[in-house]
Amino acid sequence: MAYEFRLQRRVEFSETDAAGIVHFSNFFRYMESVEHAFFRSLGHSVMLRDHQPPLGFPRVHAECDYRSPLRFEDVVEVQLLVQEKKPKALTYQIRFYSLATQPAREVARGVLTVVCVAKNPDGTFVSTRIPHDLAGKIEVAPAEFLA
Amino acid sequence: MAYEFRLQRRVEFSETDAAGIVHFSNFFRYMESVEHAFFRSLGHSVMLRDHQPPLGFPRVHAECDYRSPLRFEDVVEVQLLVQEKKPKALTYQIRFYSLATQPAREVARGVLTVVCVAKNPDGTFVSTRIPHDLAGKIEVAPAEFLA
Amino acid sequence: MAYEFRLQRRVEFSETDAAGIVHFSNFFRYMESVEHAFFRSLGHSVMLRDHQPPLGFPRVHAECDYRSPLRFEDVVEVQLLVQEKKPKALTYQIRFYSLATQPAREVARGVLTVVCVAKNPDGTFVSTRIPHDLAGKIEVAPAEFLA
Amino acid sequence: MAYEFRLQRRVEFSETDAAGIVHFSNFFRYMESVEHAFFRSLGHSVMLRDHQPPLGFPRVHAECDYRSPLRFEDVVEVQLLVQEKKPKALTYQIRFYSLATQPAREVARGVLTVVCVAKNPDGTFVSTRIPHDLAGKIEVAPAEFLA
Repeated sequence: MAYEFRLQRRVEFSETDAAGIVHFSNFFRYMESVEHAFFRSLGHSVMLRDHQPPLGFPRVHAECDYRSPLRFEDVVEVQLLVQEKKPKALTYQIRFYSLATQPAREVARGVLTVVCVAKNPDGTFVSTRIPHDLAGKIEVAPAEFLA
Repeated sequence: MAYEFRLQRRVEFSETDAAGIVHFSNFFRYMESVEHAFFRSLGHSVMLRDHQPPLGFPRVHAECDYRSPLRFEDVVEVQLLVQEKKPKALTYQIRFYSLATQPAREVARGVLTVVCVAKNPDGTFVSTRIPHDLAGKIEVAPAEFLA
Repeated sequence: MAYEFRLQRRVEFSETDAAGIVHFSNFFRYMESVEHAFFRSLGHSVMLRDHQPPLGFPRVHAECDYRSPLRFEDVVEVQLLVQEKKPKALTYQIRFYSLATQPAREVARGVLTVVCVAKNPDGTFVSTRIPHDLAGKIEVAPAEFLA
Repeated sequence: MAYEFRLQRRVEFSETDAAGIVHFSNFFRYMESVEHAFFRSLGHSVMLRDHQPPLGFPRVHAECDYRSPLRFEDVVEVQLLVQEKKPKALTYQIRFYSLATQPAREVARGVLTVVCVAKNPDGTFVSTRIPHDLAGKIEVAPAEFLA
């Protein structure tokens, strides 16, 4: 059972903008990357291709509060915490720590809610229960971690 | 005085992902684009380069609720409504309507809060009042528009 | 029969980088966008979904020479010229003109070669002839246009 | 003296497109990332901020030949080889190997030419010699590596 995952990445030049900082939309890409790494750490891909029909986890809510900018080549630690677990949905709290300063500093905090869906042959999605083998490995983080 | 702006754009292939839909992070890029077009419609750039020191509008909060996916070549109308106006900050509500179906359908709704900052010579930002000539052209949308 | 297409777009903030200019990778996204608009102008989507199996046009070669940078809010005219037409492949020459200066100035020039493929049920691609109804609408640009 | 650098990365979901493969423009972002990692391995940042005026390395030419697609979660090894070294410019050959198959397979090959520039106070660039301390650490790869 897991409720947390941490990942470090270094800001790439293509992720910055003309203000000299990481473009705010890229924090959402970082959030997704840590989620996918979390799934892999549990032995699963977020694209559950071996299910019939194939399952996926589209996002239904995403948000981020930005405190300090990230810059080119900064190393950022992205921490995922499982905030809520429902039969068909997961909500993560995601924190961004810049390791460019000592001590490390939280520069942003986000929330991501994803829903498990089956993909119909016509391309539409229908929400469905998270497969048991995956759901059984995920638990909500203790309250003191989420505060 | 303006409180609303609408922009149409067509989904580009590079904005889609392997799920066959617009990647959720790109809705935030769309939000920013309509904000900048709104500023241009008022005769201003979001990069106020003629101010000394130069001013900018970094995002301090961004969120989005996703209802239905957008796909390649869908035409989407993005509507910006001014939800809140403070001396140093603006909050927009932003609605996404897919014109791929008849009638048009709201597929997502977001919120963006930006703060006016001056850029110090050392690259750091300090929040500052929105310049009077720009602030004087922006007003909050009527409550019934925001509901 | 068509051999040329022009499209104007305005540089978005998310397309710039910390050097204050459009990130070089985005010129390739612009190239693709003008290709897709060219196809639409002929009454086709680049995703030929009504074919069985579905057809697509993955890129096999892409290149760009950069002469001058593009900046935020510059308006750029992207011109596609059909440089070569084969039964299964098309090569475009693509020119970028900045309209931010008078007279307009060519700031970059690219080449894109795409191949028509059918997508097998297992996800692999096999090259195939460009459908007759599409191929019949496309011709190579006169030599003096391409020089 | 160094003429080669290798980097592994895993394909992120946001880098894929609706064809289910890595969008072709992202190979150019990967190329830049390995270049920057190469510079860091030599003790330098590609943004030479400690120089007065600040130096940078805008791209003047970029190209890529695509042989096989990359897919979500594939691990790709990106190999940079120094192909040419001039007083003001560097050209790299960059090879992409998919580690998703055994044996690893070259899926794409690119070329990138960058020029050292000084950034004038007015934002324009002027080409300049690569600083001696950096240039002294870089050499051209042996011909048999580049074939």
